[in-house]
Amino acid sequence: LTWEAAVPVGLRRSPARQDSLRAHNLALVLQQIATSEALSRARIASLTGLTKATVSSLVDDLVQAGLVTELGPEARGAIGRPASALTLNRVGLVGLGIEVNVDYLAVCVTDLAGTARYLRTRIGDNRRQSPGQVLGRAVRMARSAMDAAAAEGLTVAGLAIAVPGLVEAEQGLLRLAPNLGWTDVLVGDFLADRLTPPGLPVLVDNEANLAALGELWFGGHEDLAGFVHVSGEVGVGAGIVVGRELFRGVRGFAGEVGHVSVQSDGPRCRCGARGCLEQVAGQEAILRAAGLAGEAGTSMGQPGGSVAELLARARAGEPRTLRAIHSAGHALGIAVAALVNVVDLDTVVLGGLYTVLEPWLREPLARELSERVLAQPWSPVRVLASRLGPDAAVRGAAGAVVKRVLSDPAAVLGSAGRRGG
Amino acid sequence: LTWEAAVPVGLRRSPARQDSLRAHNLALVLQQIATSEALSRARIASLTGLTKATVSSLVDDLVQAGLVTELGPEARGAIGRPASALTLNRVGLVGLGIEVNVDYLAVCVTDLAGTARYLRTRIGDNRRQSPGQVLGRAVRMARSAMDAAAAEGLTVAGLAIAVPGLVEAEQGLLRLAPNLGWTDVLVGDFLADRLTPPGLPVLVDNEANLAALGELWFGGHEDLAGFVHVSGEVGVGAGIVVGRELFRGVRGFAGEVGHVSVQSDGPRCRCGARGCLEQVAGQEAILRAAGLAGEAGTSMGQPGGSVAELLARARAGEPRTLRAIHSAGHALGIAVAALVNVVDLDTVVLGGLYTVLEPWLREPLARELSERVLAQPWSPVRVLASRLGPDAAVRGAAGAVVKRVLSDPAAVLGSAGRRGG
Repeated sequence: LTWEAAVPVGLRRSPARQDSLRAHNLALVLQQIATSEALSRARIASLTGLTKATVSSLVDDLVQAGLVTELGPEARGAIGRPASALTLNRVGLVGLGIEVNVDYLAVCVTDLAGTARYLRTRIGDNRRQSPGQVLGRAVRMARSAMDAAAAEGLTVAGLAIAVPGLVEAEQGLLRLAPNLGWTDVLVGDFLADRLTPPGLPVLVDNEANLAALGELWFGGHEDLAGFVHVSGEVGVGAGIVVGRELFRGVRGFAGEVGHVSVQSDGPRCRCGARGCLEQVAGQEAILRAAGLAGEAGTSMGQPGGSVAELLARARAGEPRTLRAIHSAGHALGIAVAALVNVVDLDTVVLGGLYTVLEPWLREPLARELSERVLAQPWSPVRVLASRLGPDAAVRGAAGAVVKRVLSDPAAVLGSAGRRGG
Repeated sequence: LTWEAAVPVGLRRSPARQDSLRAHNLALVLQQIATSEALSRARIASLTGLTKATVSSLVDDLVQAGLVTELGPEARGAIGRPASALTLNRVGLVGLGIEVNVDYLAVCVTDLAGTARYLRTRIGDNRRQSPGQVLGRAVRMARSAMDAAAAEGLTVAGLAIAVPGLVEAEQGLLRLAPNLGWTDVLVGDFLADRLTPPGLPVLVDNEANLAALGELWFGGHEDLAGFVHVSGEVGVGAGIVVGRELFRGVRGFAGEVGHVSVQSDGPRCRCGARGCLEQVAGQEAILRAAGLAGEAGTSMGQPGGSVAELLARARAGEPRTLRAIHSAGHALGIAVAALVNVVDLDTVVLGGLYTVLEPWLREPLARELSERVLAQPWSPVRVLASRLGPDAAVRGAAGAVVKRVLSDPAAVLGSAGRRGG
């Protein structure tokens, strides 16, 4: 027997050597600048344990690459030579996020500091058209966003697209989007072929994953050890965050809570199984149970469509509507309790349509969690409404591009160097 | 907005500096020795990219600490000075594993190469006694194992105990073992107070977690990207392995698949909820449904107790027995499908009692997975029987101690140094 399984993969790859130290330390310095306000070089040296000379050289590279800017000498409390304060460059690189969902499209541009500089949503049922038609519309929205960014002097570093289905990220392949009825769509190639400049990095990811990341990065939560962000849309998906990182599972398909069985002999789902959560607690199931038309609904929780009507009736206390939402909350509780028992999380964030329904969902959901989660007696699961609501996925998509830049600045320096050469 | 959430914690802690390089490289060299047969110093240098002088110095330290031995000069194919072949020292440090389960106790001693040198199991219902009585018996078994190890010249580096419940590992605290009826038992302190030498490291972990690790390390599977090891005992637990590492969730409570709801209005569980998997597919539920007494059962799948009778009847094709197992397989399929949809794994390993029942469980389990797992059409989930069966948890416990030594040899060198000084 040998211990073939004993070593974390990262450890095996290479010994720690001087070559990788500079890339590591560039990222370390950039992270210090990203996570604090207006740091000086000296302060970075003291925070990181690096020498001041090393920090200065690293900072110079980051400034040169357009990732960091100097705010000018610090006035307050400086003794001796005035130090300049460093901050992320907010007029340099930006990330472009796109979301294709069942009944809307959205685009977002986010700067290095995480601020959304541009955000547009277009409501409309995407089930009536081919992938090419829908993605073509998304491309046109992306081009408008890129033009708007360019007009502000911002450079798009890459783009990420959120789609409602199972994604094989390496190939940019949407394997299956049950509610759109799409299979095997090469979303990454479609976008890369139609957007300039050529070679722009394109990420494809599941919308529930990117929504969870959006909520993590931009939701203002600072105390979430591990949470599941449940997106209630036409489909129901979840993004799982543990230790402030997205949990993706083996093939990147984790979080398909919409297809957890809540009624073993329940209604047939578009996936082929019976009694899936989204057949009971998805947007159309709720609208149907409330006596409202399902197909024309919008998941945006905005005026227009039957969701607005659902909300109005819930606020007015209309009994059939309240029963429909209550029954969805009960089913959601069974599925989320299974998820929490299996994955072990301390917080449930209600996103998408569930954000606006939270006042009515909370009680039945909390009751099921309290009855079914094994660790509940001494470590109760919290239930929160999303802070970003329906914007979470597109904001997360744009953020994912920016995060990639921040976590590996050496790659940007390298490509800037190659462009320069 | 600042990017407080943007950085992996490890990166924030410290810059890469020379201090940590030696510890890193010691681990790297030891891993090379652990994962290959009879390596020379020169071969390690070429595999790791470290200089031969550095490798020699690191190897000397590992030999001195008793972790590595030299097999003498390599005869075959050597040109110039003969090189000695290096291998893990199998007569030095060992790990001691203990398992306390609902109806048996077990202990195991494992050497650095992962071979079980000692393994004892004692069947008996632990629900009739206090935690002190049961753990006292486990301590006596551990002492016998340590005496046996000492007689072979082996030194116990630490111990790990597997328990059937929710564990807070840092405090060595068993929070809740529903099937034993125990709450808040300080298992780690109990063992540390009663076993010598004082200061011996003690790990406490959930039995399903350690069983999954046992299967990963000792099950001879080399192609498992991510799997769930489902332990069917009186309770039903799961250990989830992704990227060859155990997934623990936020508080270490992940894998409680026994409390996933499979019948929303099913029988009341010991945890307080209704329709939990273990009320339908746990050992006693199966025995009861087959018309065999539940309480006297053993989960060991060995002669004695009703499990032996269950197996005999299943082999004879007795209809009520087959129906009972089939119905457990159906329920197991619903719960495991939920787990796979949420966590995304490609393999299910049937452990504990389910190992011996696998021939009858496979078909209903596979049918539910095929109907309910969203990614199933192009990426089917495999179902395997455990290779270790009921020994998986205690072997995993002993292995966890050894793994800790192998992954941080600098700690052993440090403590050997302190002992020497």
